[in-house]
Amino acid sequence: FQVMRLLILSLLFASTFAWFYGRDEPDRWSVGGVWPLPQKIIYGSKNRTLTYDKIGIDLGDRKDCDVLLSMADNYMNKWLFPYPVEMKTGGTEDFIITVTVKEECPSGPPVHGASEEYLLRVSLSEAVINAQTVWGALRAMESLSHLVFYDQKSQEYKIRTVEIFDKPRFPVRGIMIDTSRHFLSLNVIKRQLEIMSMNKMNVLHWHLVDSESFPYTSVKFPELHGVGAYSPRHVYSREDIADVIAFARLRGIRVIPEFDLPGHTSSWKGRKGFLTECFDEKGEETFLPNLVDPMNEANFDFISQFLEEVTETFPDQFLHLGGDEVNDFIVECWVRNKKIRKFMEEKGFGNNTILLENYFFEKLFAIVEKLKLKRKPIFWQEVFDNNIPDPNSIIHIWKGNTHEEIYEQVKNITSKNFPVIISACWYLNYIKYGADWRDEISGTAPSNSRYYYCDPTNFNGTDAQKNLVLGGIAAIWGEIVDNTNIEARLWPRASAAAERLWSPAEKTQRAEDAWPRMHELRCRLVSRGYRIQPNNNPDFCPFEFDEPPATKSEL
Amino acid sequence: FQVMRLLILSLLFASTFAWFYGRDEPDRWSVGGVWPLPQKIIYGSKNRTLTYDKIGIDLGDRKDCDVLLSMADNYMNKWLFPYPVEMKTGGTEDFIITVTVKEECPSGPPVHGASEEYLLRVSLSEAVINAQTVWGALRAMESLSHLVFYDQKSQEYKIRTVEIFDKPRFPVRGIMIDTSRHFLSLNVIKRQLEIMSMNKMNVLHWHLVDSESFPYTSVKFPELHGVGAYSPRHVYSREDIADVIAFARLRGIRVIPEFDLPGHTSSWKGRKGFLTECFDEKGEETFLPNLVDPMNEANFDFISQFLEEVTETFPDQFLHLGGDEVNDFIVECWVRNKKIRKFMEEKGFGNNTILLENYFFEKLFAIVEKLKLKRKPIFWQEVFDNNIPDPNSIIHIWKGNTHEEIYEQVKNITSKNFPVIISACWYLNYIKYGADWRDEISGTAPSNSRYYYCDPTNFNGTDAQKNLVLGGIAAIWGEIVDNTNIEARLWPRASAAAERLWSPAEKTQRAEDAWPRMHELRCRLVSRGYRIQPNNNPDFCPFEFDEPPATKSEL
Repeated sequence: FQVMRLLILSLLFASTFAWFYGRDEPDRWSVGGVWPLPQKIIYGSKNRTLTYDKIGIDLGDRKDCDVLLSMADNYMNKWLFPYPVEMKTGGTEDFIITVTVKEECPSGPPVHGASEEYLLRVSLSEAVINAQTVWGALRAMESLSHLVFYDQKSQEYKIRTVEIFDKPRFPVRGIMIDTSRHFLSLNVIKRQLEIMSMNKMNVLHWHLVDSESFPYTSVKFPELHGVGAYSPRHVYSREDIADVIAFARLRGIRVIPEFDLPGHTSSWKGRKGFLTECFDEKGEETFLPNLVDPMNEANFDFISQFLEEVTETFPDQFLHLGGDEVNDFIVECWVRNKKIRKFMEEKGFGNNTILLENYFFEKLFAIVEKLKLKRKPIFWQEVFDNNIPDPNSIIHIWKGNTHEEIYEQVKNITSKNFPVIISACWYLNYIKYGADWRDEISGTAPSNSRYYYCDPTNFNGTDAQKNLVLGGIAAIWGEIVDNTNIEARLWPRASAAAERLWSPAEKTQRAEDAWPRMHELRCRLVSRGYRIQPNNNPDFCPFEFDEPPATKSEL
Repeated sequence: FQVMRLLILSLLFASTFAWFYGRDEPDRWSVGGVWPLPQKIIYGSKNRTLTYDKIGIDLGDRKDCDVLLSMADNYMNKWLFPYPVEMKTGGTEDFIITVTVKEECPSGPPVHGASEEYLLRVSLSEAVINAQTVWGALRAMESLSHLVFYDQKSQEYKIRTVEIFDKPRFPVRGIMIDTSRHFLSLNVIKRQLEIMSMNKMNVLHWHLVDSESFPYTSVKFPELHGVGAYSPRHVYSREDIADVIAFARLRGIRVIPEFDLPGHTSSWKGRKGFLTECFDEKGEETFLPNLVDPMNEANFDFISQFLEEVTETFPDQFLHLGGDEVNDFIVECWVRNKKIRKFMEEKGFGNNTILLENYFFEKLFAIVEKLKLKRKPIFWQEVFDNNIPDPNSIIHIWKGNTHEEIYEQVKNITSKNFPVIISACWYLNYIKYGADWRDEISGTAPSNSRYYYCDPTNFNGTDAQKNLVLGGIAAIWGEIVDNTNIEARLWPRASAAAERLWSPAEKTQRAEDAWPRMHELRCRLVSRGYRIQPNNNPDFCPFEFDEPPATKSEL
């Protein structure tokens, strides 16, 4: 009864006084809870003991598939039994996990819309995973690992018996990282990929390049990173990029690269003639160039060659080409540039910079159209808001201060038949004090915290419109995020987005119901060695994360 | 000129648009800048090359002093040359650092007000450190290490020539950690102590125990942690505590323990009869007890015995006894308790709970007075605001939403002749998006960010009053902070407090002047292996922090 009172009180005082009164008690934690919540899950009434030497995995006729071999290695040797406890051996019957995958082992990363569906049955004697694709098997294996818990009383690992049918609600569930404002090391990127897979996320949107630095190494145009990178150490070599793509693939994650055009391009300065010269109000002193020069016809040939290389580097069918905030740079770079104004007059655009933008984008669309390796372009929403997107485009929504404003945009853009990806709900670089995945917390815009509650199809529209919602990408822009703080800042806040994008909406309406599972997820991932920060009241994990003694920088 | 424009623009657009336009350019970084800024520093015009095999340290007639031996080991083997570069050898004359300390090697930690003054002269041929105490030598050595830089062009370590006279502005410059809301591992605490010493901070205020958990292990009363700790793993053994104190001492840091009384005491529940039974509005259901029972005379004997043990455990002359937020618990725990109300009537207190509080505190003061090992008590400001503190007390200020409100309290409390310590300026657990060490950022109260600008003596008072300002302690309360995120959340934000509390006010008026040195500090400490997060615009360090591959939990 006291616990009930405490619960009621916690809810009443939510994000302020709860701290002083409440703490998360172990009797409120979930045991063998699965995150994100499966479509259907029916627990059995019994658990069974697991010991290290009595567990096995059978990959059937997919024994040679690297994705499944990597999965077996990761889970059997690291993630099923993460706690630093002495493992008991023997004492039980064998427990074999039988994995059956219908489709052949794919040589590339997951394609857009690839099945991630799976059936998982855990009985007292065995576990059975059935999936259409290896990606579904990966998701099933992660769910299976969530059913494993450490029983403090008996000091044994146990697994819950269960039947699960599961598949994602949306095909795009991602994280956007920004490696331009601050460089992120390969280790850090790989760690985020691992945590993503543990949240069943399947897209890494890699905002590789921005005004601040150009860490992407081009073979054709080495002057780009040569001049634009922070330093020769702050680049991703060709091998690094291939490594990220391969590492992501083994975890069922696609890598969508972004090269933002025509704004946010200062760091492309290594390419002579690429940027428009920019002037101050008096038209005199030059200003940091940040916008492509659309007069220079050679630039379009350059973009074409550059993007050919990009498509050879990144196998994903999607290619993000930015297009955001061009307006922020137009005044300095186009309006105050006499040559550009003359060019606009010649083209019959008059003073209308939108027409010049359209001119640029039309030429860009034509380049994309002609790419040898076909790509579907993604653009930030300004290309829809201000210009005329190619009908083949996906529109990426990042604006909106409230969930309602965001929903309104989704409605508007899908009504024009464009597929959309939503990031506006989950700008995780913005931080506020408290459990912002769950609570409304006043503060600077965007005020759209309560990440758990933002539901991209929560607008009044047709089924066809709702089917155009491809999913969401939680963004962590890099202005004040680097290797030192990205991981704890992302997680478990991004886990709220992961559940929203995977699980059935009707079963995930209350953060209060979700947090016991989120707590268990946090502690499980902490025990796997990841830096998942507290997300609720004062609490603890059975086994805490520990910081190693200081070591010197590796880069 | 372009840089000037960029600078002006950065200032104009401060915390919003600066991100998109600017990045911190290496030509704005300091080279061999010292943090916190010394009282007097005069750089020579030349630098000299340092090579690993030609550098030595001479401890004079203090060769057996463990503090200096530990210092020599840390700096010569780790911190002077932190970058992962191949070290050049030979090629220059020997460079000997001669350390002369007047006072004997102390067996205990620094006492309050101990000299930290030093003279440091670095010439082309040698370095000379002169200090009154080993603590001053530690501060000098840290300054010396800040003069060392890695010259990317010549690929050599160099040291700037300099003359420094230095001493701290305030005797108390600390960090408060809270190990009750979330447990912090020994590794994490030690890392913070190391980073503190690199910021010349000298006080760890250890808020060991609060409502949520009781990780302190008492020998006399093992039922306290037995019942009150989160788990048997979430405790500090006697050896752990001694380890923290010894580790801190070697870095010139005192450890001031806090045992908060009579509120915030839920986790003392292992002690039968210690807490007042609390009731809800109807006077029926019991409520989580969080306030000492002052009727039970045995409690005072218990407190006395407990504090005797605490003073035997912690050598520091100061003892923090809390006293905050008693009012928040009074209604439930005293006002609605019939026995307490009867007791108040018997004592002639009527309905005045303040008189009952005074009764408790008077008895507590008497206990402190009689402690075998004499201690100076510190109380949170409520004991001044609501009660009558023992004249021997130090008052610890934590309230106030603006710097002005805080200064007003400092003025008021020092006018009554109490020494004060200020934490209100630096509640680092509260987070906001942006460079809050420097910028005004709107958000939830307390709005006192701009940590760099809060100056504790910035009030209209006498010199005697200003001398009562002992210093400040940056607090990072543990509600949503644990091993996973405390380090990056503390640093470099607490470095702003470190400079404010050490350096002359007149030379540290502008954050714009400070950040090039703060940037260099961040990069230096990142290279030493510490998780110091970005603090300004997009930037980079010559050698970035790297996250190791995931490892399993150690606890």
